[in-house]
Amino acid sequence: MKTFMTLASVAAMAAGGAFASDTLQAEIDKPEQWVIQTGDYKNQRYSKLDQINRDTVGDLQVAWTFSTGVLRGHEGSPLVVGDTMFVHTPFPNTVYALDLADDGRIKWRYEPKQDPDVIGVMCCDTVYRGVAYADGKVFLHQADTTVVALDAETGEVAWSAVNGDPSKGETNTATVLPVKDKIIVGISGGEFGVQGHVTAYAIETGEQLWRAYSVGPDDQIMVDPEKTTELGKPIGPDSSINSWEGDQWKIGGGTTWGWFSADLEENLFYYGTGNPSTWNPAQRPGDNKWSMTIFARDIDTGVAKWVYQMTPHDEWDYDGVNEMILSEQEIDGETRKLLTHMDRNGIGYTMDRVTGELLVAEKYDPVVNWTTGVDMDPESETYGRPAVVAEYSTEQNGEDVNSTGICPSALGTKDQQPGAYSPRTETFYVPTNHVCMDYEPFRVAYTAGQPYVGATLSMYPAPDSHGGMGNFIAWDNINGEIKWSIPEQFSVWSGALATAGDVVFYGTLEGYLKAVDAETGDELYRFKTPSGIIGNVMTYEREGKQYIGILSGVGGWAGIGLAAGLTNPNDGLGAVGGYAALSDYTALGGQLTVFALPD
Amino acid sequence: MKTFMTLASVAAMAAGGAFASDTLQAEIDKPEQWVIQTGDYKNQRYSKLDQINRDTVGDLQVAWTFSTGVLRGHEGSPLVVGDTMFVHTPFPNTVYALDLADDGRIKWRYEPKQDPDVIGVMCCDTVYRGVAYADGKVFLHQADTTVVALDAETGEVAWSAVNGDPSKGETNTATVLPVKDKIIVGISGGEFGVQGHVTAYAIETGEQLWRAYSVGPDDQIMVDPEKTTELGKPIGPDSSINSWEGDQWKIGGGTTWGWFSADLEENLFYYGTGNPSTWNPAQRPGDNKWSMTIFARDIDTGVAKWVYQMTPHDEWDYDGVNEMILSEQEIDGETRKLLTHMDRNGIGYTMDRVTGELLVAEKYDPVVNWTTGVDMDPESETYGRPAVVAEYSTEQNGEDVNSTGICPSALGTKDQQPGAYSPRTETFYVPTNHVCMDYEPFRVAYTAGQPYVGATLSMYPAPDSHGGMGNFIAWDNINGEIKWSIPEQFSVWSGALATAGDVVFYGTLEGYLKAVDAETGDELYRFKTPSGIIGNVMTYEREGKQYIGILSGVGGWAGIGLAAGLTNPNDGLGAVGGYAALSDYTALGGQLTVFALPD
Ligand SMILES: O=C(O)c1cc(C(=O)O)c2c(n1)C(=O)C(=O)c1cc(C(=O)O)[nH]c1-2
Ligand SMILES: O=C(O)c1cc(C(=O)O)c2c(n1)C(=O)C(=O)c1cc(C(=O)O)[nH]c1-2
Repeated sequence: MKTFMTLASVAAMAAGGAFASDTLQAEIDKPEQWVIQTGDYKNQRYSKLDQINRDTVGDLQVAWTFSTGVLRGHEGSPLVVGDTMFVHTPFPNTVYALDLADDGRIKWRYEPKQDPDVIGVMCCDTVYRGVAYADGKVFLHQADTTVVALDAETGEVAWSAVNGDPSKGETNTATVLPVKDKIIVGISGGEFGVQGHVTAYAIETGEQLWRAYSVGPDDQIMVDPEKTTELGKPIGPDSSINSWEGDQWKIGGGTTWGWFSADLEENLFYYGTGNPSTWNPAQRPGDNKWSMTIFARDIDTGVAKWVYQMTPHDEWDYDGVNEMILSEQEIDGETRKLLTHMDRNGIGYTMDRVTGELLVAEKYDPVVNWTTGVDMDPESETYGRPAVVAEYSTEQNGEDVNSTGICPSALGTKDQQPGAYSPRTETFYVPTNHVCMDYEPFRVAYTAGQPYVGATLSMYPAPDSHGGMGNFIAWDNINGEIKWSIPEQFSVWSGALATAGDVVFYGTLEGYLKAVDAETGDELYRFKTPSGIIGNVMTYEREGKQYIGILSGVGGWAGIGLAAGLTNPNDGLGAVGGYAALSDYTALGGQLTVFALPD
Repeated sequence: MKTFMTLASVAAMAAGGAFASDTLQAEIDKPEQWVIQTGDYKNQRYSKLDQINRDTVGDLQVAWTFSTGVLRGHEGSPLVVGDTMFVHTPFPNTVYALDLADDGRIKWRYEPKQDPDVIGVMCCDTVYRGVAYADGKVFLHQADTTVVALDAETGEVAWSAVNGDPSKGETNTATVLPVKDKIIVGISGGEFGVQGHVTAYAIETGEQLWRAYSVGPDDQIMVDPEKTTELGKPIGPDSSINSWEGDQWKIGGGTTWGWFSADLEENLFYYGTGNPSTWNPAQRPGDNKWSMTIFARDIDTGVAKWVYQMTPHDEWDYDGVNEMILSEQEIDGETRKLLTHMDRNGIGYTMDRVTGELLVAEKYDPVVNWTTGVDMDPESETYGRPAVVAEYSTEQNGEDVNSTGICPSALGTKDQQPGAYSPRTETFYVPTNHVCMDYEPFRVAYTAGQPYVGATLSMYPAPDSHGGMGNFIAWDNINGEIKWSIPEQFSVWSGALATAGDVVFYGTLEGYLKAVDAETGDELYRFKTPSGIIGNVMTYEREGKQYIGILSGVGGWAGIGLAAGLTNPNDGLGAVGGYAALSDYTALGGQLTVFALPD
């Protein structure tokens, strides 16, 4: 009997893992819910709900509101699972469970006790891109890198794990990926010389399963030199350490603070790595692999199937962490499994997500000037590499020289703000920055826990354009073309939502929630929420009514001046001066606004 | 020519004073504006606007929102003057001017630099009941008692004056009264042994004109022993100091943190004084005059015309500062100039505001048990005094004895939350508390700047009633009767608004804005704003559209547990335990929500 029970338990545990992801996929598939930050594993941020559509969206009203009790930048979005909404906050990362069946009553709140010193080592405001739901638990990844599994019903801690060390500048702002029997998590600290990694924890117990670094020796980066490919070719042994001088990879960055996608059929998950440390390129000769790289890794083993480094030897802080949106589309007459990635460097990449083949690489803002484009010739020596324009090369101009007029700025043509994809229109809806910069690199010494940046920046709207600092664009990932573009006064730092109602939503830094026609981009609705929006629009349905939810709360890198009370234009790595006018429109906040159609 | 100009300037200055109040009255009289916190000099909080009325209010929608960038308790309301809305915050008392003609764009913001130490000597959260407008200026009275006149167009400081000393526990939470050529201001600190006073400053220059204390020698309290009356009789010499032992009046309280009314025809202004210090009555024998007193003072000279002490020798902290609402009504066949005051002690007083005659004194919550009522026999020795019930007398029960089951609690049947009066229904709409308490006084020594309280309290919903902690009532001030009463789960800590649309508005601590029928009290509309409401509802009109504005942001004494992060039930003088359940409904906030009917 004892033996039997033991065997049964083992079987249950093994099944538990598989069960978790099956259940989660089923929960994700219910259009009335929003169970992970990205909407689905594909990061499409597309909802099948269509009650709020092109014809009705103009009648939208505010249904209810909720203050989170915390100020500063509110990224991410609430989740809805069954009758419960989960709302997170920036540091101190409070989590609320609101009972939607009881007018938003607070079922529980979880208030982590974190050392506020972590705020000092967060590069770009105290943001947090939100909790994830799986398997009856809510997964919180705190600023101080503590990963916490909370019972979704009670808010009680099921397990917790420590992923990094804030005293070395290791922090967290990203959501986790719950997939199969695992939680996969990233780490921040590219501005502190952190050696970036992704780590898998057992969903049931919090036990660490594997950790794959972005830079370093092959065993640390979890590659198979013969089988892991870049653009179809094996990367070979020591691919990363060969691209650094000496031990520099140990403080080499490549942090993983962006979004995760997954293809369960291929058993792969996708994410990008951030900038190599420091921002002074002269201090780190080489390609600095695998910073600035798209990774496709095996969900179970963590081993990389393919990689693609978009910006070898970064000279501009163009972190490669932006989301990978997965879609199935026809290209050259063949339906392929695609991965579309609007990189911070200003190039929109379309790849075969199974093989890592590069299909399209085009600028998605015409002002992008640091490169003439990506070499698309498979026979070329520089296949897949962007051609750098000398004038805008901070490496070639050298240390202590101010390279001016570089487009985009270090914020990129897009930063963390995620785009959306509508399978109905086969269009990507992309919140963008339209900002250029001056960039002066200088020599900097590494001290653990101290900024390891080495550059002075200033930022300004793209010259000779519409005068604004942002655009909201519709992108054709097959032809590599902008379909339409809506100029915005400030960067669109909010995530987009596409819906079956052929309406696309996004928020603005002034605080507007806007709804536009998915085909034409025509504005159909706008509402001034309490504070600037850097959160991501989500939708859910309850008792036959569709709702739209958005967090307000200005901040993030673009809003760091307001969020941290800075006024020196060069502070916040140039963002303070660039976005100074924002204070004419909004003040700090932290509120959820929920919209619906009138009865 | 020189002489002529000088004379002209002098004339202009003299006229300037008179002009200021004429202009202000004209501005107050425009129903599309809201220029002082109380709506008008009568404190009626009644608007002639009627687009939003009994029939239409059900269609109300949120028109726009604004986050103030500050958390904790948001009392008071925005003002609207012309195209500009002025919004204030709790400490640090930021003031925003929003351009209503440009979608709420921030025209200017004034951010005072105040020593945060003042927070430690504010008794009941960092609240501020709002700015006042007069004469092209916005008047801010900061927590640290600095009075600042700001140019309404530019936000530039015209003058500033220092009214008190936070190191002695002197602070401010009240709005100022701009009247004629003066600004009249109060002071807080009854829990720190502050000798309360009202002070007049010249509206043009900030020069101090006079200061009238609540307690002390006749010259300090600015009375005329022969002409200043109480209930028709001269108060005689040394009326205050005779009612204290020794020098105790010097730390005797009677602070002035409530609302001001004015009758320009009578040249009088009205206000009430707070509790005598300490809360341990055994330490301060005597009537403790003129704490707990309604004052009618001459606007120009500051000298008191009449006084009425409602709660001689307070034993429960029933501060007498609640608003005096002025009305003209028929009583016994004669139209009289009335003053109606719903006191914290649970009694609603109706007085002749010209003579100070007491007309009506009735309990406005049946649970009030500390008194059997006020002696209304003019021939009686105890005329005008409440008869104290021995069981609930913390003085008679003595020091270190816990007197239990006293109703109302120290919060009173009503606290700072102002009522409204509709001349159409001749009804007072009163937000109330339905809370009782245990009160144990203990001996305490005075140290400047340290709490001088001397009592341990606990609070709970009125027993054997509906279980909730509040009611919103309609009060007949002539018959001294409740017309109807709406039970609420928590105290109604928000101020009411009555309108010509026969709709009455108020907010709840859970965060609902509610609209009820002025005749029946039937609920017509409710909306869940971001955070608990302790602000006051206001209304304005722009381009033919009526708007309703309300600040959310839980706090104040009732919400001090949430606001200050306290959890010990006896903290916050018992309010923390009493209102513990509030955390199931709301979190801290600081947002303006503006409502209107659909186009
Ligand atoms: O290199 C890093 O580790 C790191 C972390 C983060 C972060 O964690 O938010 C940002 C960045 N870099 C960054 O480069 C950046 O532009 C950025 C913007 C934001 C934001 O949330 O607004 N975070 C970050
Ligand atoms: O005696 C005083 O000076 C004093 C000041 C204040 C204040 O300034 O807010 C309050 C009180 N007392 C008080 O007794 C009281 O109930 C109270 C409630 C509130 C509030 O805003 O919620 N303030 C005050």
